[in-house]
Amino acid sequence: MPELRKDPIIGRWVIIATERAKRPSDFGADQEIKKPGFCPFCYGNEDKTPPEIFALRNNGTSPDTPGWSVRVVPNKFPALEIEGDLNKRGEGLYDRMNGIGAHEVIIETPNHNASIADLSEDEITNVIKAFKSRILDLKQDHRFKYMLIFKNHGSAAGASLDHTHSQLIALPIVPKRVAEEINGSKTYYLYRERCIFCDIIRQEISAGIRVIAENSHFICIAPFTSRFPFESWVLPKTHDVYFEDINPEESYNLAKIMKDILTRIKVVLNDPPYNFLIHSSPFYEKDISFYHWHIEIIPKLTKVAGFEWGTGFYINPTPPEEACKFLREAKI
Amino acid sequence: MPELRKDPIIGRWVIIATERAKRPSDFGADQEIKKPGFCPFCYGNEDKTPPEIFALRNNGTSPDTPGWSVRVVPNKFPALEIEGDLNKRGEGLYDRMNGIGAHEVIIETPNHNASIADLSEDEITNVIKAFKSRILDLKQDHRFKYMLIFKNHGSAAGASLDHTHSQLIALPIVPKRVAEEINGSKTYYLYRERCIFCDIIRQEISAGIRVIAENSHFICIAPFTSRFPFESWVLPKTHDVYFEDINPEESYNLAKIMKDILTRIKVVLNDPPYNFLIHSSPFYEKDISFYHWHIEIIPKLTKVAGFEWGTGFYINPTPPEEACKFLREAKI
Repeated sequence: MPELRKDPIIGRWVIIATERAKRPSDFGADQEIKKPGFCPFCYGNEDKTPPEIFALRNNGTSPDTPGWSVRVVPNKFPALEIEGDLNKRGEGLYDRMNGIGAHEVIIETPNHNASIADLSEDEITNVIKAFKSRILDLKQDHRFKYMLIFKNHGSAAGASLDHTHSQLIALPIVPKRVAEEINGSKTYYLYRERCIFCDIIRQEISAGIRVIAENSHFICIAPFTSRFPFESWVLPKTHDVYFEDINPEESYNLAKIMKDILTRIKVVLNDPPYNFLIHSSPFYEKDISFYHWHIEIIPKLTKVAGFEWGTGFYINPTPPEEACKFLREAKI
Repeated sequence: MPELRKDPIIGRWVIIATERAKRPSDFGADQEIKKPGFCPFCYGNEDKTPPEIFALRNNGTSPDTPGWSVRVVPNKFPALEIEGDLNKRGEGLYDRMNGIGAHEVIIETPNHNASIADLSEDEITNVIKAFKSRILDLKQDHRFKYMLIFKNHGSAAGASLDHTHSQLIALPIVPKRVAEEINGSKTYYLYRERCIFCDIIRQEISAGIRVIAENSHFICIAPFTSRFPFESWVLPKTHDVYFEDINPEESYNLAKIMKDILTRIKVVLNDPPYNFLIHSSPFYEKDISFYHWHIEIIPKLTKVAGFEWGTGFYINPTPPEEACKFLREAKI
């Protein structure tokens, strides 16, 4: 059972893997070498993953066989385990609990060579449908307080398999980074009675210099305080608290803008490694109406080094206004 | 002039480079290729760096010529600029100020091929003397509120030159990560009237399972909530607020334990890339007596991916108790 431990100084949680713990020889150049040829996410290899939890399938096909267009399976090497209780306990200054949670993999297409930017709007809409369906299901489990959907694209961004996929992790605590955003937007709301994200969108539309793309429901901006070169955020243009409340029309427009920005990033930066993550509201918080879900896309172009680790400050060598210009003018 | 921008949601600052801004073609594989042969940090190339600010030198040698053992120069490509004032200004929701600060490079030895672990205790003591001297000097400039000394070892940890060196950045604000530690230790102090770091040291000595090394003045532990495999912290065993108050005997013992732990990391993990950073107290804070300076050493063995960016949670595949065992038992 993995363990959740809480830092006694700043309250940050870490997940400590206790089974299959990595030894010194497990790190280093060797881990980069991938076996070519075999892919557990391709048609015909469905028995090489744990049994599927959700799939969009052709009529008449059986679970764990070919015929799916999106397929969700438990992660074979989960960071957290689904069975058990938290068993919170102290030990002097320290707090720990069992590493309870869900860790699933969303295989976005059977096509081994496509990236998510290569999929059609309809295919990406199906991926969003899978995200929504998994959140609504896991939300019923009251051990979970938060769920993060994220994607690692490319080995340098943490992907261990090439076949395009995203992941979800359901957590028994609201993570620090989300709590900070919630506290910040709450403070702003108490002061102004407005959503800070809505105000940012309004200011960005009026300024114009950091808007990369826009459609009827969504806007994509290079944030004023981008931590990383070519960081891009996608936000619903009208106030929306929960990602999982998305309706089919919005899903299609989200697919459209995600394809648009990911294609721009691919073209301008030569298919860089990147991460994206969906920040939505925690489950079952009483007063969360001031929060506004969004997607953060982070190309992995620079290295996080001692200064960043030591300060939490970031040094961004590309002003977001210039990144925006390159992305907006991309020929796609 | 670089710009400091404050995130309106969570209050995090970023440094936006405005001169020599990186364009899309500046990223990617090309940047990794280093010109072999030429090193601006070697003897004879002193004119290839900005003029030295501090050096420990053989008697009779002139500044910016060979004959030094430790040499400090301004960073040729500084993240922040030393001249000017902050000129804080708002723009709707956003805050910005001029990127004022100091950014210096500490060249730790003239020996191009040595890493800091290869230096003698006396040589490392001299490096610590240079750190102390630069802090005491920059502390007189009241525009600066905080100073971070850090090291990037190896290209994957962000080093752009092989020749061993560390860096210091003086900042006009107390960075988020340090403020969190200060707030956490203050809360603890108000509650218990004790230093949380002192209490952690006491608990670790009594538990014994995370103590990697120890001498008369310092202890090195694998923290209970290590974010990264083989993360190691060095702390003064008695309460000490400011790194720069270190005396010669303590400096020698710090050099000894730093050589010890960095050699253990080198041997056990096959000379991995790593960062280290010194967390000391902000300058001129009125009430800071509860804080305890320390050094965090972070081997770079895993990739920070979407989950970590999205949550601020870390997944550590090596429990600190096991990392400690490997490091403690290393044959050095």
